[in-house]
Amino acid sequence: MNVRPTIAITCGEPAGIGPEIALRAAWELRAKTRSVLIGDSAFLSMTAGDIDPAIRLVALSPQAVRNSGLPHLSVEQIAVIDVPLAAPVAPGRLDARNGRAVLQTLDLAIEGALAGWFDAIVTAPLQKSTINDAGVPFTGHTEYLAEKTGTPQVVMMLAGGTPLLRVALATTHLALKDVPAAITFDSLSRTIDIVHTDLRRKFGLPNPRILVTGLNPHAGEGGYLGREEIDVITPVLQAAQAKGIDVAGPYPADTLFQPKYLERADCVLAMYHDQGLPVLKYASFGHGVNITLGLPIIRTSVDHGTALDLAAAGLGRADHGSMIEAINVAAQMAATSSRTP
Amino acid sequence: MNVRPTIAITCGEPAGIGPEIALRAAWELRAKTRSVLIGDSAFLSMTAGDIDPAIRLVALSPQAVRNSGLPHLSVEQIAVIDVPLAAPVAPGRLDARNGRAVLQTLDLAIEGALAGWFDAIVTAPLQKSTINDAGVPFTGHTEYLAEKTGTPQVVMMLAGGTPLLRVALATTHLALKDVPAAITFDSLSRTIDIVHTDLRRKFGLPNPRILVTGLNPHAGEGGYLGREEIDVITPVLQAAQAKGIDVAGPYPADTLFQPKYLERADCVLAMYHDQGLPVLKYASFGHGVNITLGLPIIRTSVDHGTALDLAAAGLGRADHGSMIEAINVAAQMAATSSRTP
Repeated sequence: MNVRPTIAITCGEPAGIGPEIALRAAWELRAKTRSVLIGDSAFLSMTAGDIDPAIRLVALSPQAVRNSGLPHLSVEQIAVIDVPLAAPVAPGRLDARNGRAVLQTLDLAIEGALAGWFDAIVTAPLQKSTINDAGVPFTGHTEYLAEKTGTPQVVMMLAGGTPLLRVALATTHLALKDVPAAITFDSLSRTIDIVHTDLRRKFGLPNPRILVTGLNPHAGEGGYLGREEIDVITPVLQAAQAKGIDVAGPYPADTLFQPKYLERADCVLAMYHDQGLPVLKYASFGHGVNITLGLPIIRTSVDHGTALDLAAAGLGRADHGSMIEAINVAAQMAATSSRTP
Repeated sequence: MNVRPTIAITCGEPAGIGPEIALRAAWELRAKTRSVLIGDSAFLSMTAGDIDPAIRLVALSPQAVRNSGLPHLSVEQIAVIDVPLAAPVAPGRLDARNGRAVLQTLDLAIEGALAGWFDAIVTAPLQKSTINDAGVPFTGHTEYLAEKTGTPQVVMMLAGGTPLLRVALATTHLALKDVPAAITFDSLSRTIDIVHTDLRRKFGLPNPRILVTGLNPHAGEGGYLGREEIDVITPVLQAAQAKGIDVAGPYPADTLFQPKYLERADCVLAMYHDQGLPVLKYASFGHGVNITLGLPIIRTSVDHGTALDLAAAGLGRADHGSMIEAINVAAQMAATSSRTP
C-alpha cells in the first residue's frame, strides 16, 4: 500500500461552512489521505460529534508539532493543530475577534508546508472582512500565500468538469477597466512560464499544451476590435514558443471553449476573471478546484465562498464536493511533485 | 395541420459553408418550414445537385415576388429568390466582386420581411471583408439590419444548450477597454426594455425573468473591484424593477452560470461579449442560435463563421446543426409573435 499523503486543511471562516466541509471531506478521504485540520480543536470536536460520532480527532499544539513533528495516528484518527478562537462561534455571524485566529491557521499551514510537515495545503473559504475588521490588511488567500512565501508572482488556475478543464488567469481580482493595462509583455510572459513550469512539475505533463485567449472579442479581429493581441499577446507567445513552450493563440474566447479545441489542450490561459471562470464553473457544477501556481508549496482550495447563510441554517446543508476535489487534486499534485525533479 | 411558417434564408458568403448549410437545413426541415433561399440560383442548383439530387429548387426573380408574391409550391419544392453573383464561386476563396450581391440578399430579406412575404429571416454567415473590399462600409449583419429597419438600438442574444440557456449582451463588438464607458444608464435601460419586450412578444413569456451580471469580477465586491455596479447597474435595475420588469442582479458572472441559478431565469444579461458567450458556446457545442432583439422583424442566425477552410475542402464537411436550430427558433418565434398582440 502507498503511504498516504499528508494534507493540511485550514478550516477558514469559523462562522461559515469551512469547518463542516473540512471535517466531512477529511473523514471521507481518511483511507487515502492523512488530513491535518488547522483550527479551533474544541469547536471542531463539537462539530465533528454532530456530524458523525465516529469521527475521532486528536488535538495537537503547534509547538508540539514544531518540537516533535506530527505523531503517528491510525487511519481512524484525524489530527487537529489547535488554534483557539478568541470568541464563541455563532454560525452565519461574522465576528472580527476571530480574524487573527483565521490568519494564524494560514501561517501555520505555510510554516508546516515549508518545513515539510505537510505535502500540500488545502484552504477552506475565509471571509476577508473578518480579517480586515480585525485590523489586519488582507486582500485574499492567494496574495497572502505569495507574500509569506516570498513569491513575486503567482497564477490562479481552476480545474474541474468532465472532461477535465483547466483555466489559468493572466489577471485576477481587478476592476475590468484596469485589465487591459495590467497585461504587459513581462507579466504575461511570467504567467506563461509559471503555468508551463507547474504543469510539468506538479502535474507531471512533460510538454503541456497551453491555449491562450485574446483580450478583446474575436481576439481583436486583426486590430479592428483592439490592438492588445497584436502589440502584446502575440509577441509574448512568439517569445514563449522560441523558448520551447507549447503555447498557441490568441484565440477568440467564445469559440475556444469547445470540445474540439479543448481536447487538444492541457490548460486554457484566459486574460481575465470573467472571461475564463464562468465556463469553468458552469462545466464543474460548483465542484471546481482552485490551484495556486508558482508557489514553492502545493496549495489548492475550494472554488466557492463561506456560504454564511447555509452555515446559519445548521449542519447538513453544505456540499463538500469541491473540498473533496481540492484534497484529491492536492494529493495527486503532491505525489507527482515527489516524482518530478 | 398547421400552416408552415415562411422563413427567408440568406445564403451568406458564397465561398463559405453558407450555401451548403442553408440548402441542407431547408431540405431537412421542409415538412414543417417553408424556406425561401436568397442567393444565386444557378450556384445553389449546382450545389443542391451535389448534396442530394432529390432537392428541387424553384428560382424566382425579386421582381416577380414583388409583383405577385411567393407562389404556392409543394413541400418538395424550395423557392430561391435569385440574386446572381458577379463572379464564379471558388469555395474557400473570397472574391470582392461578389460583395454587393451578398448585401443584396440581405436587402431582399429585409424588404420581404417588412412587406410580409416572410414570417422571419435567418442569415447564413458572411465575410465582412468581402463587402468592405467591394467598397461598401459594413460592420456586421446586426448593425446593418438595425440601420435598414430604422431601429435605434438592438440587442444580441444567443440561445442554446440543454437545458436551454439564453444570454443577451449589453455590449457586443467593442474593444475591452471601451466596454466600461459604453455601459450607461440609458443604454443599459434600453437594453433591458428590449430584452423584456421581445421575450414577451416573440418568445411568449408573460413575465420573463432576467438575471444580470456585474461588469467587474465578483460584481465589484461592494465597490472594491470597480464602482460601475454601484453607480450604473444597480440604479438601472431598480428603475426597471419599478416599471414592473422582473430583473435581478448584478450577480458575479462566474457563479451565475450554474444550474441552481439558471433554472430560475429566462435570460442572462451579460455586460460584454466574452463574459457571456464562452459559456453559451460551451453549453451549446457550437449549435447556438444568434437572435437579434429589438427589430420590427424576426431574425436569427447561426453562431459560427463562414468556415472557408471547410468549404474549400468540399461539400460534406460542414455541420448544419446551428442552421437547423436557427430556422427552428425563427419558426417558433414567428408562431409566437402571430399569437401575441
